[in-house]
Amino acid sequence: MLEFDKSQTAQYGDLILLVGPNKKRHIIFLNEGDKLHTHRGTVVLDELIGKPWGSEVITNTGGPFYLLKPSIYDLIMELPRTTQIMYPKDIGFILLRMDIGEGNQVLEAGTGSGALTTALAWAVGEKGRVFSYDNREENLNLARKNLSRIGLETRVKFKPRDINEGFIENNLDSIFFDIYNAYDYIHHARSSLKPGGHLGSLMPTTNQVSRLIESLRQNKFLLIDVCEILLRFYKPVPARLRPSDRMVAHTGYLIFSRLGS
Amino acid sequence: MLEFDKSQTAQYGDLILLVGPNKKRHIIFLNEGDKLHTHRGTVVLDELIGKPWGSEVITNTGGPFYLLKPSIYDLIMELPRTTQIMYPKDIGFILLRMDIGEGNQVLEAGTGSGALTTALAWAVGEKGRVFSYDNREENLNLARKNLSRIGLETRVKFKPRDINEGFIENNLDSIFFDIYNAYDYIHHARSSLKPGGHLGSLMPTTNQVSRLIESLRQNKFLLIDVCEILLRFYKPVPARLRPSDRMVAHTGYLIFSRLGS
Amino acid sequence: MLEFDKSQTAQYGDLILLVGPNKKRHIIFLNEGDKLHTHRGTVVLDELIGKPWGSEVITNTGGPFYLLKPSIYDLIMELPRTTQIMYPKDIGFILLRMDIGEGNQVLEAGTGSGALTTALAWAVGEKGRVFSYDNREENLNLARKNLSRIGLETRVKFKPRDINEGFIENNLDSIFFDIYNAYDYIHHARSSLKPGGHLGSLMPTTNQVSRLIESLRQNKFLLIDVCEILLRFYKPVPARLRPSDRMVAHTGYLIFSRLGS
Amino acid sequence: MLEFDKSQTAQYGDLILLVGPNKKRHIIFLNEGDKLHTHRGTVVLDELIGKPWGSEVITNTGGPFYLLKPSIYDLIMELPRTTQIMYPKDIGFILLRMDIGEGNQVLEAGTGSGALTTALAWAVGEKGRVFSYDNREENLNLARKNLSRIGLETRVKFKPRDINEGFIENNLDSIFFDIYNAYDYIHHARSSLKPGGHLGSLMPTTNQVSRLIESLRQNKFLLIDVCEILLRFYKPVPARLRPSDRMVAHTGYLIFSRLGS
Repeated sequence: MLEFDKSQTAQYGDLILLVGPNKKRHIIFLNEGDKLHTHRGTVVLDELIGKPWGSEVITNTGGPFYLLKPSIYDLIMELPRTTQIMYPKDIGFILLRMDIGEGNQVLEAGTGSGALTTALAWAVGEKGRVFSYDNREENLNLARKNLSRIGLETRVKFKPRDINEGFIENNLDSIFFDIYNAYDYIHHARSSLKPGGHLGSLMPTTNQVSRLIESLRQNKFLLIDVCEILLRFYKPVPARLRPSDRMVAHTGYLIFSRLGS
Repeated sequence: MLEFDKSQTAQYGDLILLVGPNKKRHIIFLNEGDKLHTHRGTVVLDELIGKPWGSEVITNTGGPFYLLKPSIYDLIMELPRTTQIMYPKDIGFILLRMDIGEGNQVLEAGTGSGALTTALAWAVGEKGRVFSYDNREENLNLARKNLSRIGLETRVKFKPRDINEGFIENNLDSIFFDIYNAYDYIHHARSSLKPGGHLGSLMPTTNQVSRLIESLRQNKFLLIDVCEILLRFYKPVPARLRPSDRMVAHTGYLIFSRLGS
Repeated sequence: MLEFDKSQTAQYGDLILLVGPNKKRHIIFLNEGDKLHTHRGTVVLDELIGKPWGSEVITNTGGPFYLLKPSIYDLIMELPRTTQIMYPKDIGFILLRMDIGEGNQVLEAGTGSGALTTALAWAVGEKGRVFSYDNREENLNLARKNLSRIGLETRVKFKPRDINEGFIENNLDSIFFDIYNAYDYIHHARSSLKPGGHLGSLMPTTNQVSRLIESLRQNKFLLIDVCEILLRFYKPVPARLRPSDRMVAHTGYLIFSRLGS
Repeated sequence: MLEFDKSQTAQYGDLILLVGPNKKRHIIFLNEGDKLHTHRGTVVLDELIGKPWGSEVITNTGGPFYLLKPSIYDLIMELPRTTQIMYPKDIGFILLRMDIGEGNQVLEAGTGSGALTTALAWAVGEKGRVFSYDNREENLNLARKNLSRIGLETRVKFKPRDINEGFIENNLDSIFFDIYNAYDYIHHARSSLKPGGHLGSLMPTTNQVSRLIESLRQNKFLLIDVCEILLRFYKPVPARLRPSDRMVAHTGYLIFSRLGS
């Protein structure tokens, strides 16, 4: 994913993914002299230099790991966090549904630990910009650190402001709300979106969804869509194919709308 | 989305979206002298020039429409088609899950009508490339026309070849199979992916999934994930919030894997 | 299911099920001289006499049908109706969840067309009783006719009363509400249930569910459970096993509780 | 549910349900001098005598519990078990779908711990009979003990036989298979069902489903239906209504069919 990952083999300085049995992921920098300690034994990182991506790596106790470059999906799933994060099942749909692509200027209200921020920065590309608002400094610091680790922090402007005061930017392509009371700030979105711009939100409860729909209508937003996404995994065994025993039942409802004139 | 959509108002030459009651979408070029005929009356396109995006437009019989720029989601949902297309609920997850972003080189086996091709071309940006294989010329022609309409055809190389003969490209970031017997061609994917590269597929039946998992294992692909995505819409009525009566129950199972060394 | 269905073959007077291609069901009485006219041709009913259940029957135009005794599931699915009915996916769970079995005395608020009434009368057996309230005479008449057709009307007392006035019965095993504003009548349920008795309801909207939970709490009901059931069918093709294309996305939320002292 | 539960208050000898916070259930006999030890303190059972069902009970450390008669649902959910049991979401639908009611003669292949056996014995009533086959004595012993505890063992004939040898009974109303290789025994079901009788099965994997469909067709069973049931719970909080975080993703696929002549 990252600019400096041109080679086909692991090199010092690379951010690497080591995946063990049960798909447990470890994402670390390949620093000289470092070791990775796992329940399945220790990996001496120096021994990974020059190995092709996709190689098998064996710990000192015989535990098998795979060496890979982390994908944006891996990075989101393993993001260091202090808050509930958004999940790829929702993020993937949000990006496509809200037309968030190369060169876009998008605003996020509610940075949290930076999971969606990471995906937005990835999606808008080098020429795009993400404006991420949160009134908690500790959230912004963690998110900045998380983005910095993967070289995407230059695409993001972190905004330590109370959303009550509105957004500074205008003519934005899209705005996403990941805060409890998004319905209280829809008039601010109205001022900052370009004509026909996209608004989205994720809300955990039905009561919030009802209030948000009301607020969107009062602020003349168009084409309100409400939906939810369920992701079910299967055990990948050809002769005994079946879904996993348990699954995530709910992350939140997704609400989408466009700014009317 | 498109480069030439800089202005805040509709201009001749724009590809526009007119959305009527019940969210019925019409996507057309704003050509001088043209009219859009709908069940709710006629819209004289010349009258739209200079209107801001998000404006309400009234037909000669009083039918209300909204004037918008079509998003990538709108374009996929309304794609002129002769085959079953992939749906945004799957495409959004595929793009994120397979790390398909700015500057990527991706290959698609099975162009169909070009729905996924459209999304891939959008996601890889100006510097990326999509190689789309299909052995039916009529599919390629329709997909080319669909991509051309939105200015993305320069990012795509259409390949009128039988996949049996393998792929010409190599060192690709990712390959997606949308063909019935993907399991027969996994060795070709092995030759054309870069180390650790992403492979994905959508398969409608459980029998195909079992066969594909077997083939992936035989070809030493790693970290096989199988899942399915369910999308449920809600009626956006604040005081009577509830899911829609019916929904899509199945499009296909998604399979993801990475190339091992 | 019915007492008079002792024989292994079809006889005059039997209520029969004829199932055609695509599982289209016809439920009729086997009356002398009658014919069943379908899109696939005509069946002369007299020719069915003496045929074993499970036999294939051919229409005058060659259309194949199967001759069966209708099950309680068939009867509910094909119930003549003027209102939205409850579906077996919900009814089956309700019966088990609310412990509605042999000899029970149960009350239903909202007869509708009698789908749940049919299932309740079936479940409580010969010694049980169902009290079914509806203030619309036309509903009670249709439900009575539907129950009568299958010989279960003697187990049901139809009550043409406004629920506002409360229920006459007391010490009931369970009460089910299938009316819009169930939350307005929970105090009546309190008076009519036995200690620890079961209360259930199906509500289409989230707003109703919130109000019902509040009312149950105010009336000291215990152990409130809220859930929903999704039923997905598969195409029964061994070599191409997959879910159907579309499904019912929502019938209603189910709410269960027990009377506290 | 049970015959001897006529009174409105708890008496010695009653099987009781004590439900604590988080809906943790304890099902025990109310024996003189006994105590229930829980994480929330101790309940002296003698103090429950004469209390109405639905009463609140306080442990010695102040923990609140509710005193209730266990329902068939409670009994199944808390069944002492050594095997995976069937769940109410599936059982409720099975009973209704297969027309299993008062006076029926039903056979179950695969007793397991007796969860479905319990539900079948409950559903067929006093005049019905359940024939439950299992070739493991330890399964039959546990199931017998479980049925005996709730007074339903007289309705069940336990059969310590290998299903390979076929079933002794014939003219049965319905047969349910809860064994791995049900597809190997469908010809036995053919001999033992009455004309038009119901066959059902629960199978965890798609591969088993494919094989079962094939076997049903070879044995001229009619109207094959395959489905699965998803049950999602909600947090019952009126002002913050939302689904639970996690849910059961899969128990098994349900297959239904009727015997053709």
